[in-house]
Amino acid sequence: MIIDALSEKIIERQNPTCVGLDTSPEYVGAYRGDPAAAVYRFNRNVVDAVFDVVPAVKVQIAYYEALGRGGVECFFDTCAYAKARGLFVIADCKRNDIGATAAQYAKAFLEGRGGENIDLITINGYLGSDGVLPFVEAAKANDKGVFVLVKTSNPSSGELQDLKLADGRTVYECMGDMVETWGGDSVGKYGYSRVGAVVGATYPEEAKILRARMPHSFFLIPGYGAQGGNAAMLKHCFKAGGMGGIVNNSRGILCAHKTSDKWKDVPSPERYAAREAALKMKADLLSVLGEIHA
Amino acid sequence: MIIDALSEKIIERQNPTCVGLDTSPEYVGAYRGDPAAAVYRFNRNVVDAVFDVVPAVKVQIAYYEALGRGGVECFFDTCAYAKARGLFVIADCKRNDIGATAAQYAKAFLEGRGGENIDLITINGYLGSDGVLPFVEAAKANDKGVFVLVKTSNPSSGELQDLKLADGRTVYECMGDMVETWGGDSVGKYGYSRVGAVVGATYPEEAKILRARMPHSFFLIPGYGAQGGNAAMLKHCFKAGGMGGIVNNSRGILCAHKTSDKWKDVPSPERYAAREAALKMKADLLSVLGEIHA
Repeated sequence: MIIDALSEKIIERQNPTCVGLDTSPEYVGAYRGDPAAAVYRFNRNVVDAVFDVVPAVKVQIAYYEALGRGGVECFFDTCAYAKARGLFVIADCKRNDIGATAAQYAKAFLEGRGGENIDLITINGYLGSDGVLPFVEAAKANDKGVFVLVKTSNPSSGELQDLKLADGRTVYECMGDMVETWGGDSVGKYGYSRVGAVVGATYPEEAKILRARMPHSFFLIPGYGAQGGNAAMLKHCFKAGGMGGIVNNSRGILCAHKTSDKWKDVPSPERYAAREAALKMKADLLSVLGEIHA
Repeated sequence: MIIDALSEKIIERQNPTCVGLDTSPEYVGAYRGDPAAAVYRFNRNVVDAVFDVVPAVKVQIAYYEALGRGGVECFFDTCAYAKARGLFVIADCKRNDIGATAAQYAKAFLEGRGGENIDLITINGYLGSDGVLPFVEAAKANDKGVFVLVKTSNPSSGELQDLKLADGRTVYECMGDMVETWGGDSVGKYGYSRVGAVVGATYPEEAKILRARMPHSFFLIPGYGAQGGNAAMLKHCFKAGGMGGIVNNSRGILCAHKTSDKWKDVPSPERYAAREAALKMKADLLSVLGEIHA
């Protein structure tokens, strides 16, 4: 089961880090020719730098759609390359729609060609069960997983998500409860279902509430690094033994070569800087989580 | 201003209908070769059949992403063809993310290559202002528009959207209030802003509430036809003179050739059936709305 396998990889690597391949051409440095080709080369270098350090990558499709012609191919090629190097691949696409249309998105990302190299996707649950279950069904049929947005890492996430409901819950707690329901019949041997949640590192109090409320949900945790989340803040996203979550870092790893003069005369410095940043992040997370074990 | 121009086209055509090009290869009938090419041919036939009857098309990107390689190109080619025939083009992509990533999606669909042939897009506001405003800013800079999901047409939309908040509002009313705020500084001459709302035809009571609460928001209204909405139900989505909204119909027009034996021996029957269905829908809407006027 996908979340069991991901959990085992995290234990093996002693590293609950996901490298976010939100690759803007601006991060790539000087290049000639097609931006999609340049982004793909850069991504391969980053994957080569981290493939034996981290268990997973998260590929943010918006950056690829913004490349124009060839961008979506670059997204799928990046997923394929990361998969071929043994990494779990999370497609961060936050798709959502009514049932029949959600089934088309599931087909695009969890089945057939898309599903070949994608293990998990992010989705948005604003439409309720019938917009979510087509993804869950496709995930079950193909041993994939989904992460539903619950409490997002951005500054204004509370405008809707933190609102109090008449029944005393917040909107994000309600979404969290629905996620537990959607995943209820697919809990793996470590206690987590294939329907997980996106819970931002930037909101530790809310994460603590959700961690207690969602015992069977594996968390995808954005917001570490550039967005302001640190290891101490996100420890509440994990259960005992440092299990039950994976922390994304995009710019902190992708742009590591831009943060120090020591890389300035090195060709393709991301080949080295990304690894150094990933190792530093691993040490930072482990300093708070301790040894990761089932 | 885009919503003024769309409103004028609706008045000129006396038809607040949007044809949904949610084209599954299954709708296309027998074809040889590439499904994306077959879908594109079919879409051109439908556009040719309706371009002088309706003001707009809505192209649902999920169906194109599900086509695999070449699918997204088919989406953009379809947008380009509809635009070239004088139609307003709504990209139904329901994108959403944190600010920096939302800006990438805005680049993909409202600026540069994507923006060339797209007038309006749908987005999901679960992340709050900083996930929405990059789309709004791109829309302002390029005279485009956005539709934010408020009350969706699907059966389970109420699971989250209908929940009562502690302040007495529902979640969908809260989202509607935010939409009015996001669009507040871009109201055109007919009183509608470039930040509109998706409000399902299938929920007339909720539509009535939202229409009163969101005086400056233009509504994109899904759910007519196959999903169960009819003209009487959706009249509450409109303001005086039949203004302030556009009704989408996808399967009812795309699959019209499958509903009668009279098309069974006609080659490319969608060339005729789609027009007949669009004219019938126009008459149906006008029977309830009366003459559309500013």
